Amino acid sequence: MEALLKTEPERGLTYSQDTPEPELAADEALVEITTTAICGTDVHIYEWDEGAANFPIQFPRIVGHEASGTVRAVGSAVSRVSVGDRVAFETHIPCNHCYACRTGNAHNCENLQLFGIDHDGAFATLATAPESVLFKLPERMSFETGALLEPAGVAMHALQRSGIRPGDTVAVTGCGPIGLLTCKLALIAGASRVLAFDIDSARLEAARDLGVTAINPGSGDRALLAHEANPARGGVDLLVEASGAADVFEWALPMIRREGTLVTVGHPGRPVPIDITQSVNKLGLTIRGSFGRHMWKTWTALAALLEAERIDLEAFITHRFAMPDFDSAFDAIRHGAIKVLLDPSR
Amino acid sequence: MEALLKTEPERGLTYSQDTPEPELAADEALVEITTTAICGTDVHIYEWDEGAANFPIQFPRIVGHEASGTVRAVGSAVSRVSVGDRVAFETHIPCNHCYACRTGNAHNCENLQLFGIDHDGAFATLATAPESVLFKLPERMSFETGALLEPAGVAMHALQRSGIRPGDTVAVTGCGPIGLLTCKLALIAGASRVLAFDIDSARLEAARDLGVTAINPGSGDRALLAHEANPARGGVDLLVEASGAADVFEWALPMIRREGTLVTVGHPGRPVPIDITQSVNKLGLTIRGSFGRHMWKTWTALAALLEAERIDLEAFITHRFAMPDFDSAFDAIRHGAIKVLLDPSR
Amino acid sequence: MEALLKTEPERGLTYSQDTPEPELAADEALVEITTTAICGTDVHIYEWDEGAANFPIQFPRIVGHEASGTVRAVGSAVSRVSVGDRVAFETHIPCNHCYACRTGNAHNCENLQLFGIDHDGAFATLATAPESVLFKLPERMSFETGALLEPAGVAMHALQRSGIRPGDTVAVTGCGPIGLLTCKLALIAGASRVLAFDIDSARLEAARDLGVTAINPGSGDRALLAHEANPARGGVDLLVEASGAADVFEWALPMIRREGTLVTVGHPGRPVPIDITQSVNKLGLTIRGSFGRHMWKTWTALAALLEAERIDLEAFITHRFAMPDFDSAFDAIRHGAIKVLLDPSR
Amino acid sequence: MEALLKTEPERGLTYSQDTPEPELAADEALVEITTTAICGTDVHIYEWDEGAANFPIQFPRIVGHEASGTVRAVGSAVSRVSVGDRVAFETHIPCNHCYACRTGNAHNCENLQLFGIDHDGAFATLATAPESVLFKLPERMSFETGALLEPAGVAMHALQRSGIRPGDTVAVTGCGPIGLLTCKLALIAGASRVLAFDIDSARLEAARDLGVTAINPGSGDRALLAHEANPARGGVDLLVEASGAADVFEWALPMIRREGTLVTVGHPGRPVPIDITQSVNKLGLTIRGSFGRHMWKTWTALAALLEAERIDLEAFITHRFAMPDFDSAFDAIRHGAIKVLLDPSR
Repeated sequence: MEALLKTEPERGLTYSQDTPEPELAADEALVEITTTAICGTDVHIYEWDEGAANFPIQFPRIVGHEASGTVRAVGSAVSRVSVGDRVAFETHIPCNHCYACRTGNAHNCENLQLFGIDHDGAFATLATAPESVLFKLPERMSFETGALLEPAGVAMHALQRSGIRPGDTVAVTGCGPIGLLTCKLALIAGASRVLAFDIDSARLEAARDLGVTAINPGSGDRALLAHEANPARGGVDLLVEASGAADVFEWALPMIRREGTLVTVGHPGRPVPIDITQSVNKLGLTIRGSFGRHMWKTWTALAALLEAERIDLEAFITHRFAMPDFDSAFDAIRHGAIKVLLDPSR
Repeated sequence: MEALLKTEPERGLTYSQDTPEPELAADEALVEITTTAICGTDVHIYEWDEGAANFPIQFPRIVGHEASGTVRAVGSAVSRVSVGDRVAFETHIPCNHCYACRTGNAHNCENLQLFGIDHDGAFATLATAPESVLFKLPERMSFETGALLEPAGVAMHALQRSGIRPGDTVAVTGCGPIGLLTCKLALIAGASRVLAFDIDSARLEAARDLGVTAINPGSGDRALLAHEANPARGGVDLLVEASGAADVFEWALPMIRREGTLVTVGHPGRPVPIDITQSVNKLGLTIRGSFGRHMWKTWTALAALLEAERIDLEAFITHRFAMPDFDSAFDAIRHGAIKVLLDPSR
Repeated sequence: MEALLKTEPERGLTYSQDTPEPELAADEALVEITTTAICGTDVHIYEWDEGAANFPIQFPRIVGHEASGTVRAVGSAVSRVSVGDRVAFETHIPCNHCYACRTGNAHNCENLQLFGIDHDGAFATLATAPESVLFKLPERMSFETGALLEPAGVAMHALQRSGIRPGDTVAVTGCGPIGLLTCKLALIAGASRVLAFDIDSARLEAARDLGVTAINPGSGDRALLAHEANPARGGVDLLVEASGAADVFEWALPMIRREGTLVTVGHPGRPVPIDITQSVNKLGLTIRGSFGRHMWKTWTALAALLEAERIDLEAFITHRFAMPDFDSAFDAIRHGAIKVLLDPSR
Repeated sequence: MEALLKTEPERGLTYSQDTPEPELAADEALVEITTTAICGTDVHIYEWDEGAANFPIQFPRIVGHEASGTVRAVGSAVSRVSVGDRVAFETHIPCNHCYACRTGNAHNCENLQLFGIDHDGAFATLATAPESVLFKLPERMSFETGALLEPAGVAMHALQRSGIRPGDTVAVTGCGPIGLLTCKLALIAGASRVLAFDIDSARLEAARDLGVTAINPGSGDRALLAHEANPARGGVDLLVEASGAADVFEWALPMIRREGTLVTVGHPGRPVPIDITQSVNKLGLTIRGSFGRHMWKTWTALAALLEAERIDLEAFITHRFAMPDFDSAFDAIRHGAIKVLLDPSR
């Protein structure tokens, strides 16, 4: 079958047309992939940059994890999904036995495996995954929307952890796909004002199109800005850090009001110096790390918003490529693309 | 001056043109009233029905508490408001000394006094109130919007206590002003679906105009309905009871999903039988009583949404009367009016 | 094998020595029972009183659910427990597929089955249960302690839902086993004062032995009492209702301070009239229903306290009987016994 | 009068016997000091080390803020305290007007003044403070206990912010007074196990005397230790960082289990590098900064525990000095003293 693999610790991926079809374990389903999308993690793996070290990978590995498709076969112990079901993939494969798994936090499993990193992924004609990570698509949902539930879920989970309340003022640092989805979902959650920061003009334009205040952080005093954005409260109520840039924290934290919240969803490639005394203790700040999506609160809430037509995930798609053109797809991302799809050849 | 008073334990109010002007205490401001609105509690006091007993009143008393106006004089100990300030009134007058007051819950003060019930109110040319309950109107806010911050705050506080999260399905029982404002604010807070229940066709129409699903509860199986409205979760995530009708609880509670939430904001005139075993324990239900508005989280959040033009409170006004026509104003409410204003004569 | 069964809708149970051994399903383990204890629900089923209707049972059914023992065989799909494991039973058998199960609230499963009610129980030589409800006993824990994890977990879960904080003043209504365990665990959780209410002098004595203030509610003004117990806050911070008596609510709710919490863990046999306006709305009360134990936060926390020797569950055992003497065991409970064990014959 | 002042930016303090008595503002009370205690911040100010920069001070300033005494005079606007009242001092002097103050978080006031830093303090015969920061001592509480409510409140507030629950395993880094008080209060709050870390053998001994597991962090693998301390959950449920040492974070964070909590109460003198990706995001960590005490939840809860004799603050006092011997007092702290009192001369 067709597949994109990481085969060595260098820049690039390997396209293959004769990868063996995956073997099916008893608790797994075999899914014919219809649509995949490229995640920032895939970009790090492709570029083999500093960020790639956050998610160690073994060679060879079929990469890719934002995906949807149709179940074609199921293992002997599978009971919840059936051949013909249309599904999307949760990337976090939990052990189901550790304390996190047994208390409602499977996304932070102690023995976590990542689809497309520790387990062969979705940039392929076919993929297998445990039935426990398959989400059945509602009847009226398109495969393209289905493939974007995973990244939209990253933004949704970050906001769920933030405790956002109607009327809050929200800052979002980084206007890649996760940041833009966070902006949109923050508006849906009742934010009175959203300040979106990026240095890329195309991304700032995309943020502006969502109806938020888009700002190049190079311009002026940001703490003053936050105070002006929310003079009644002395700063933004919450900040979602979605850039993964380590140097953002220094100027972004002072934008948050006393007793406010920072959710970190971007993954910096190196330790970040934080002034615990002035920025955390004296502000009464709460910082919450976010990773993946809650199984299954995030998925259910997002599907409900989509069913109600309160958000349109396809609007975030700017490019579509066939799998053999993967180099062009990754190139588009370097040049300001938002969400880029890769479809298996037919 | 002009005023509307409750002077005896019978139906109706007394209009007077020669009520003495109020005396100003050291911690109070004297406010010239521009706009007032009629609350459901005012209706109970006017009608002198079962609900009037919830808020005992002494005679004679100037009633009315949803109001805005301009500060004309301040007492000797006043430091935060000044002559000329445009203000709205918080109805709950706290003692500032009890445990509730000293831990951020002044709206539930142990020694609570209610403006327009325990202290002369706002249906008058002039009213006094402690500076601690005056909210300064943002520059661009109209007096009419200012007068509606109080009832909108009741709805906002109910939702703040509910812990509403984006994607939730919400039921609201009762489509009077508080119920309708709750519907609107639930949508703003990211509800994926809102089910609004009432038996009055004009109120159902008003709910429908807000974009929610309006339902006469006499029609069909409501628990089934709730399940259909949210099949993925087995019922609504939260229910806001805004009718104050004691018999609503029996059919409404089973609409809530397991581990869901009921917020009670309507004030029933008699005890309500609740099946603790089947409807509370076995559902893992959380019930939260709501009264008034949080000082000042509710006001600040609401003002931010108004500033951002995410909600238009004037749209809830259906009738305007001059104070001498108060009988017509109360009559309009009996015939389906939503928000009715009463303006002092000029 | 030996077993105690409910065979008809009348008072009493049937003791049998030739009940067939249970059949083992693929996901189940077969457990040889070492120790069982009698729950209040068992008493209702034995007495066939008003409370029995809360948990409908079919005939014939082996009853009993507080139990520990040793795994003797496992079904083909079992992977977590092994022959020889010492285990206790979680009574709530979840479907693992509904929204509650998939979001960390399996104890409130939509399709809940109860061990000893909907599935044959533990008053027998052998019992089967899905491996998903078996809790492996830590090495040093006795079987008697193991059998009491279930009822102690009811008290623990009630307190976990209450949000108890160190320094709180706590009232507990009802000093049966659940009430007494709640008193003890409230002290462990840092309660500054615990007021325990019952009308039975033996139970009040047992409460007094735990170091709490034991009170017969017939004596004097209870709201005044609560205020005196916590003058700085105007009432108790939280109340755990563990009696299941419907008439307790009327006098107990006014003991709670403004913005306080009521957790209901007793199961009244009929609807309870609650004054929503005065006792819930105006107090800003939060009411939380509690049923069963959180899987597995409750179990883990309780096991940790036992491991640290902060609580001694065996101290709550007042009587031990062999299974054929079950009538005497139930009789002891009618006469003030606290925790009564029933051991299978050897 | 007698006073200890900081008069220049160098090591040491100045003792004076002819400092003018303070002037009394309208909203202030004049308190004759009975007992004071030395805080870690006072040590930084005395030593004039790196940590002194966290709390900038102007010269000359009477320092000291942990104190109790008796009201001798009150300003014209004072209404809550009276001459003869026995009181302790809250160090955080709020403006009462900002958003934090008006929403229950006065301890994080935007315009915060610190008693003993921005306002003359308590190392003196007499001190003034706004009545809004005076806590009336319960009748049976000693002045020595009263003076220690402030530092005990720092530990209590840290635990209140942590959301500690009975059965939790807790790590505390730093066994100075705040760390030791945190250990003791964590036990009171139901911790199943407390791991206390320090490098000073006297402080480790003091921790051991409280009944916790005292560990020199130089010895062995701390993450392994935490895992062993809480194998069922894979690490400690919460960590309270009370050392203020920047290098603690690197080895301490990995001790926390997934979805666990870090509360920072120590104030590092320089930015701390934190691995957001591995230690925060992937663990689902929550970090909460803590500063001061909640007004007045912390004080009320602590007073209730003292009233119930669940904690004995005087047990933390190891040394007592008269004010002229202040150099010896600060010297004792350098040599392992826990809580050191300074009493004004009589």
